[in-house]
Amino acid sequence: MSTDRFTRKALQVPAAQELVLSHVAAGHTELISTVTSDRRTLAETVQAPHDYPAFRRSGMDGYAVRAQDTVPDDGELPWLEVIDDVPCGAVPKEAITAGTAARIMTGAQVPEGADAVVMLEVTEQHVENGRKLVTVKKPAASGQHITPIGFEIPSGEVLLKPGRLIGPGELSVLATFGVHQVNVYRKPVVGIFSTGSELLDITDPLEPGKIRNSNTHMLAAQIVEAGAEPVVMDAIPDDIELAKAKVEEALKAYDLVVTTGGVSVGDYDIMGDLVRSGSMDMLFNKVAMRPGSVTTAAVQDGRLLFALSGNPGACYVGFLLFVRPAIRKMLGMPKDKLRLPSWSAKLGRAYTKVNNFTRFVRGTLEVSDGQVVAYPAQLDESSVMVTIKDSSCLIIIPPELKGASEGTEVNVLLLPGALH
Amino acid sequence: MSTDRFTRKALQVPAAQELVLSHVAAGHTELISTVTSDRRTLAETVQAPHDYPAFRRSGMDGYAVRAQDTVPDDGELPWLEVIDDVPCGAVPKEAITAGTAARIMTGAQVPEGADAVVMLEVTEQHVENGRKLVTVKKPAASGQHITPIGFEIPSGEVLLKPGRLIGPGELSVLATFGVHQVNVYRKPVVGIFSTGSELLDITDPLEPGKIRNSNTHMLAAQIVEAGAEPVVMDAIPDDIELAKAKVEEALKAYDLVVTTGGVSVGDYDIMGDLVRSGSMDMLFNKVAMRPGSVTTAAVQDGRLLFALSGNPGACYVGFLLFVRPAIRKMLGMPKDKLRLPSWSAKLGRAYTKVNNFTRFVRGTLEVSDGQVVAYPAQLDESSVMVTIKDSSCLIIIPPELKGASEGTEVNVLLLPGALH
Repeated sequence: MSTDRFTRKALQVPAAQELVLSHVAAGHTELISTVTSDRRTLAETVQAPHDYPAFRRSGMDGYAVRAQDTVPDDGELPWLEVIDDVPCGAVPKEAITAGTAARIMTGAQVPEGADAVVMLEVTEQHVENGRKLVTVKKPAASGQHITPIGFEIPSGEVLLKPGRLIGPGELSVLATFGVHQVNVYRKPVVGIFSTGSELLDITDPLEPGKIRNSNTHMLAAQIVEAGAEPVVMDAIPDDIELAKAKVEEALKAYDLVVTTGGVSVGDYDIMGDLVRSGSMDMLFNKVAMRPGSVTTAAVQDGRLLFALSGNPGACYVGFLLFVRPAIRKMLGMPKDKLRLPSWSAKLGRAYTKVNNFTRFVRGTLEVSDGQVVAYPAQLDESSVMVTIKDSSCLIIIPPELKGASEGTEVNVLLLPGALH
Repeated sequence: MSTDRFTRKALQVPAAQELVLSHVAAGHTELISTVTSDRRTLAETVQAPHDYPAFRRSGMDGYAVRAQDTVPDDGELPWLEVIDDVPCGAVPKEAITAGTAARIMTGAQVPEGADAVVMLEVTEQHVENGRKLVTVKKPAASGQHITPIGFEIPSGEVLLKPGRLIGPGELSVLATFGVHQVNVYRKPVVGIFSTGSELLDITDPLEPGKIRNSNTHMLAAQIVEAGAEPVVMDAIPDDIELAKAKVEEALKAYDLVVTTGGVSVGDYDIMGDLVRSGSMDMLFNKVAMRPGSVTTAAVQDGRLLFALSGNPGACYVGFLLFVRPAIRKMLGMPKDKLRLPSWSAKLGRAYTKVNNFTRFVRGTLEVSDGQVVAYPAQLDESSVMVTIKDSSCLIIIPPELKGASEGTEVNVLLLPGALH
């Protein structure tokens, strides 16, 4: 078995991502109340059930008139009799006919017969013999300040498509059209555990030779951001039988399982050994990337197991490159939204490390004079966990570059939420 | 009173923002379990309670040796006696002395006496008379593959500062150092209600002249994104006494109150009238911006009331420019993180509307050859709610531009979460 450990075949990142995604499908759906659907992913097409606006809507506070009645007659300003007052939400009581007008508010329904709204500011009001009159000081054009029925959205128009992440703008649209229940994809439940006899719990005092288990807590937050629900299980010591039992149990209970640690090429490669033991189908156990070259993925009965590196930096990147796209596909998101957004940028500082594998270097993104500039973090060893919190992008340094000088054109992957 | 409505003094956006922020302070704090602190804001300085690594850590699977023992003697490869096996989490049983080595794993504690780790791949193992021996095929340099104590973070170093939003990277750091409880700012509770006799609930069937209340649901999602907790109250009809009672009640119950609607210059300017009635201190009731020029802010007993426009687009922008920074300041975030991030960009398409006020045009952001390009949405009337969901930025068009041609340099504000 130790031969296998050393003769792993490294996949390129895009090929490994494709392989993972080919084993994932959109998950189950559920009908929920729209007011609780923020950050959920839509599982249906939503079409406009009616025109919007559903009535001819006034765009101004003023008077609804017939445009032809506002033209001065022989230099004489026209005056019109005010026969109605239409606040928002009201139904006009009377139609506008020659010589009449209705007081109207922004957003209110324009009465039948009127074909224009004139602003309050271009009118003068007076009362004559108990009759309310209005003088229009500037002729109106037909249609002015009236939003026609269906102008914003005609009935039947597709408002939202399946796979759409619901946020403030989507909620505005759904509420506007009275869509008070929506089908969304069920959140995948993701089981997480760490392996390693060196791991202490976050509440444990430090012991010689040991470190605290930090990756599961980091992963839990990453899983929430990805749109799924994390379940953190206890860490297990380096014991292949225990790991096997735990993975079997987790793959039965959860939609996806992520482990961290136990995938080195050393003697305690328990997750690697487990994946190679034949109880599941290995997708890959080496990826041509730094950090995280030992990232391993397998599938059992249609459920994915990701065995990520125990190095915090490698674990972080491995999650974003492989697990996050899988979760997003389970959430029914479209193909072009599965991976992290990729931008072109200029390198703001030289990055001189050379590697046979593509490097995903944590860095920060700045925009200077409309130009995107990416600065690699100063410390970039895979074990250095402190730079994760300060990064806004992963800078892709392919091996062909053999290091990269300041100003080199690179591609960067935007980290979730990092620009706010 | 109607005179006041028409003679409002318009503040510029930055001045209005400053005025709001001068009336807000960081709120109360609470001690919570770190594993539940994702998306919360830190209210204390966290310093490293110990060195990290806390022991000399092996960076490779291989053997811990004395570098001087790996130099060939007269062309003869050195061999060393393997006296220990140190897996991760274990404490070495013996110190390394001349002629000895210890098998060691990545991440394990390097034994006393050893000053280098050699990779497994450059060694050969053999057993002679029951003694385990290792041959080192390449001389080691002192210090190689050993991460010194405190190399990543020395004890006492500031890890995180107050006002820091906690995410995956911060959780990794906190867990690593066993910081299992943290002081965070309490989430401000924000009461929201709409005003307008035209408003139907999301579950109501459509009625003539009426529209559904969509803004409170949009605002609730925006408030969650900003880090606060929304409480959606029922909409109220246009009735100043009712509005006054509701605002009084809300300002007692919640840390902040946001209303939408009732701030036009028409007859139903109930929120405007309320603010001018003297029961509270008005900060402003006009801002030199489109959409949202009627955005109003007031303060009563140290609590802020924001009366946003009822137009969905204006409500959305008003929240982001004024309410979100206030919430973030209540969460103790630093000055440079309160407002939306601002980038320079080139306009990808002409924007020809001219206005005396600064326009905040919803648009999409793209990066092409490392250059940020902003495309204004095609429909940009303040009432058009459909573009909110498709926007990733607000393009700032100052009045001096008198419209802007394709390629014009503009500033854009990044919308929360819009790039993912």
